[in-house]
Amino acid sequence: MPENKPNEERVLLPAPKEPEKAKEAAKVPERIEKVFAGIDKNFTKHIAKVQEFLKQSSVSAEKEGIIETALMVKGMIESIGGKATFHGSDDFPIVFGQLDLGKPKTLLIYGMYDVQPADEKTWKSPPFSAEIRETSQHGKCIFARGAVNSKGSLASLFNALKEMKANDDIPVNLKFTIEGEEELGSPHFAAFVEKHKEELRADACVDFDFAQDTDQKVTMQLGVKGIITFDIVCKGGRVGGPAEKEVHSSDSAWISSPAWRMVQFLSTLVDKKEKVLIDGFYDNVIPPSKEDMELLDKLAKTFDENMILREVKSLRFKYDSHGADLLQKYLYLPTLNITGVSSGYTGPGQKSVLPSKARAKMEIRLVPNQKHEEILEKFRKHIAKHGFDEIEMEDIFAYPWSKTPVSSRIVHEMIDAYRILGREPEIWPLGAWSAPYYVFSNLLNLPFVRGGLGSGDGEHSANEFCTIEGIKDFEKFVVVFLNEFAGKK
Amino acid sequence: MPENKPNEERVLLPAPKEPEKAKEAAKVPERIEKVFAGIDKNFTKHIAKVQEFLKQSSVSAEKEGIIETALMVKGMIESIGGKATFHGSDDFPIVFGQLDLGKPKTLLIYGMYDVQPADEKTWKSPPFSAEIRETSQHGKCIFARGAVNSKGSLASLFNALKEMKANDDIPVNLKFTIEGEEELGSPHFAAFVEKHKEELRADACVDFDFAQDTDQKVTMQLGVKGIITFDIVCKGGRVGGPAEKEVHSSDSAWISSPAWRMVQFLSTLVDKKEKVLIDGFYDNVIPPSKEDMELLDKLAKTFDENMILREVKSLRFKYDSHGADLLQKYLYLPTLNITGVSSGYTGPGQKSVLPSKARAKMEIRLVPNQKHEEILEKFRKHIAKHGFDEIEMEDIFAYPWSKTPVSSRIVHEMIDAYRILGREPEIWPLGAWSAPYYVFSNLLNLPFVRGGLGSGDGEHSANEFCTIEGIKDFEKFVVVFLNEFAGKK
Repeated sequence: MPENKPNEERVLLPAPKEPEKAKEAAKVPERIEKVFAGIDKNFTKHIAKVQEFLKQSSVSAEKEGIIETALMVKGMIESIGGKATFHGSDDFPIVFGQLDLGKPKTLLIYGMYDVQPADEKTWKSPPFSAEIRETSQHGKCIFARGAVNSKGSLASLFNALKEMKANDDIPVNLKFTIEGEEELGSPHFAAFVEKHKEELRADACVDFDFAQDTDQKVTMQLGVKGIITFDIVCKGGRVGGPAEKEVHSSDSAWISSPAWRMVQFLSTLVDKKEKVLIDGFYDNVIPPSKEDMELLDKLAKTFDENMILREVKSLRFKYDSHGADLLQKYLYLPTLNITGVSSGYTGPGQKSVLPSKARAKMEIRLVPNQKHEEILEKFRKHIAKHGFDEIEMEDIFAYPWSKTPVSSRIVHEMIDAYRILGREPEIWPLGAWSAPYYVFSNLLNLPFVRGGLGSGDGEHSANEFCTIEGIKDFEKFVVVFLNEFAGKK
Repeated sequence: MPENKPNEERVLLPAPKEPEKAKEAAKVPERIEKVFAGIDKNFTKHIAKVQEFLKQSSVSAEKEGIIETALMVKGMIESIGGKATFHGSDDFPIVFGQLDLGKPKTLLIYGMYDVQPADEKTWKSPPFSAEIRETSQHGKCIFARGAVNSKGSLASLFNALKEMKANDDIPVNLKFTIEGEEELGSPHFAAFVEKHKEELRADACVDFDFAQDTDQKVTMQLGVKGIITFDIVCKGGRVGGPAEKEVHSSDSAWISSPAWRMVQFLSTLVDKKEKVLIDGFYDNVIPPSKEDMELLDKLAKTFDENMILREVKSLRFKYDSHGADLLQKYLYLPTLNITGVSSGYTGPGQKSVLPSKARAKMEIRLVPNQKHEEILEKFRKHIAKHGFDEIEMEDIFAYPWSKTPVSSRIVHEMIDAYRILGREPEIWPLGAWSAPYYVFSNLLNLPFVRGGLGSGDGEHSANEFCTIEGIKDFEKFVVVFLNEFAGKK
């Protein structure tokens, strides 16, 4: 088992430079041209492999096809000469794969084989038929649940690895942690990683994905925000209000309302600009580093603010800012969002009721260096301070933010891989979304990056697809990236 | 067509006295004993008539059986020698009946023949089978949608009138306005009454009902509160926020939230004690008259506050008051209630969304002398004053309060009818609920009272029932009341 290099060596690199003209025109070595030729030659078979994987349903929410799919993943790891074992929950195995080739460097690969339910009514072909159709905007595409999120790229990854094995060499040792509960919030993943810390030693971790926008722009995120989700429930009874079921609304003349209590409580949480009013909420928030600020300045030059407003059809941002300042607020301020609220009768027309409870679904996005335990404690203190003792917090779920410095070697290697293939990525020091990448960056102390060429759309909704052309780009990207990671010339 | 007496003559009576011992023991005249004997003798047939009417479904929300039921009502009016015509909407006719017997006094009777949907899963017998079952608490009962609200009493009314006709005399002229859209909010009723003001002239108006509690307590309401219902809708777009559909919640880092806007707006409406903060909201609220205050003092002696708390399972009232003071707050203060609120995702678990709109269903109960047009205007001004210009009010529905003085002749006559039958009613100057009684009290300037013996439960829900014993009490009550109203000895 190769030893990890000390952490300092991984990060002590200068910030990535602007691409040089020469590098843009750089050719890949002949070895790699041979692998590319293999990909081109066998591409029809590759597509068939991706379709085969997409035809196997693996809906974790419905516990459908999970074991069958885990066995296929195990088979794919074995097909390149690796060993694979099942861990975590018996019903949703985490596939832990190892391919020890005695190379100097080891890459840990994160992936997922489960998908969202596909019960939407508007699928044009069955979601597990993986039909190929010509589209006006994106050429030939595979339509399937999981095509872009994320079984399409997972199957393509193994196509690329097999071509490397056949035409050249896999130049690094590989470890795989491919889970089947990502869409359920990865409930067993952190414990698995904690338990197998030693066996998971590596130089870096990557989540290979079809990471291009549908307009072909390439972005790279070096981190994600953390998240806390929970429900707040305000019930009648304890401080007044109907306790068991809604009652006739004429009783609101003398019986107090859990719906009003909920409104009163929620209104203490943020001001009119949505600035959070919980004592100490912003205490540990750190501003962007000099390095990150440089990335923001650079991003501000290419980033199209109006495109965001057009996408969500909003007339303005909640901050009166632009450019790097807006991006800084977007990425470096934590948020408190109501994802849902309900109380009483919510159907058509009217029903004369006084509700017996009100429920709000809350979501906090955490930024460096906030800790979720601390924020939850502050939230609880806020409830008590304002005298809403009857409010209960239910279904609390949380995980931390993750952040890898732009000076990390793996970041440079991925940027170089993009540039060799003629693409210049937008580098985001953080994403505003959340994913359990902290498992690698925090628990394993590994630099983590997510990327890949290839694109698609419709994740979590009907007619999810990935482009055929993108699969070929993705496979070539994997080849070039592994070569860069291995440091081979 | 008999002329109405001037209004003064109807109201210039002293407040009703405590029952005298003699009156309590008062026998009904022999004429009426004969009618009672007819009711007893033919009671099996009467029950069959009530069942027949209940077996005819008349769900206005589903437009089911409406015309068939209207024709049955027409037939019942004709069976006592009256004339009946259809008015209002063709699909939901208002049955206008007239029985002109050339008597000195005329009574206008309000009724409804439509019922709520009966789609509840827990009916023990089909809702339109009108099955009779023995119950441990209430003896024999008829179980049917409409049994207590209100087709049971409507059919029983005609049983009583037929027995009066056969065994004695109907001592007054009768007019009937029986509508089939009450459960839809009586959308054509006020216009019909306005149009037929002259033909609807009468001395008083009554809504005969099974008005006893299931614990047999007899209550009488001399009025009801008015009502305004509407939705407030807060959408994204205009002042920021996603305009068309919910977006990924990571966007809440820079896009504002219609859910937070809704919370901010709602929190301006009431204080922590639910006192309404709209400028001028309480301006025209008048305190109870001396007469009403006497009723409240009397009510406070028999009224059980803890029973209310037990029923709604609340630990306290929203006012720190008791007795007549609590009753005064309950009846004489207007209220602003949230009957429902919804935004974003409200299912199980979590969904990472930023909602594009939020909706709150609001209900205002109006007391004398508030006017709904004025309150609506003040609500709109409140929206503008607090800068929530994007908030829209939808589905506005309103009607006024109704109030008949306790000194009205019809009130005395109803109290006397109860006392003759050995019952002492709790007299409420107002009810906290709402009903379109203003049509009679305000548009026609007629004293209006609702009452009747008989009881049942389960209105608007499964296993609605009325008691068989109550039907007999109700029929006898109608006979005694019409005799009192006619002033016959």
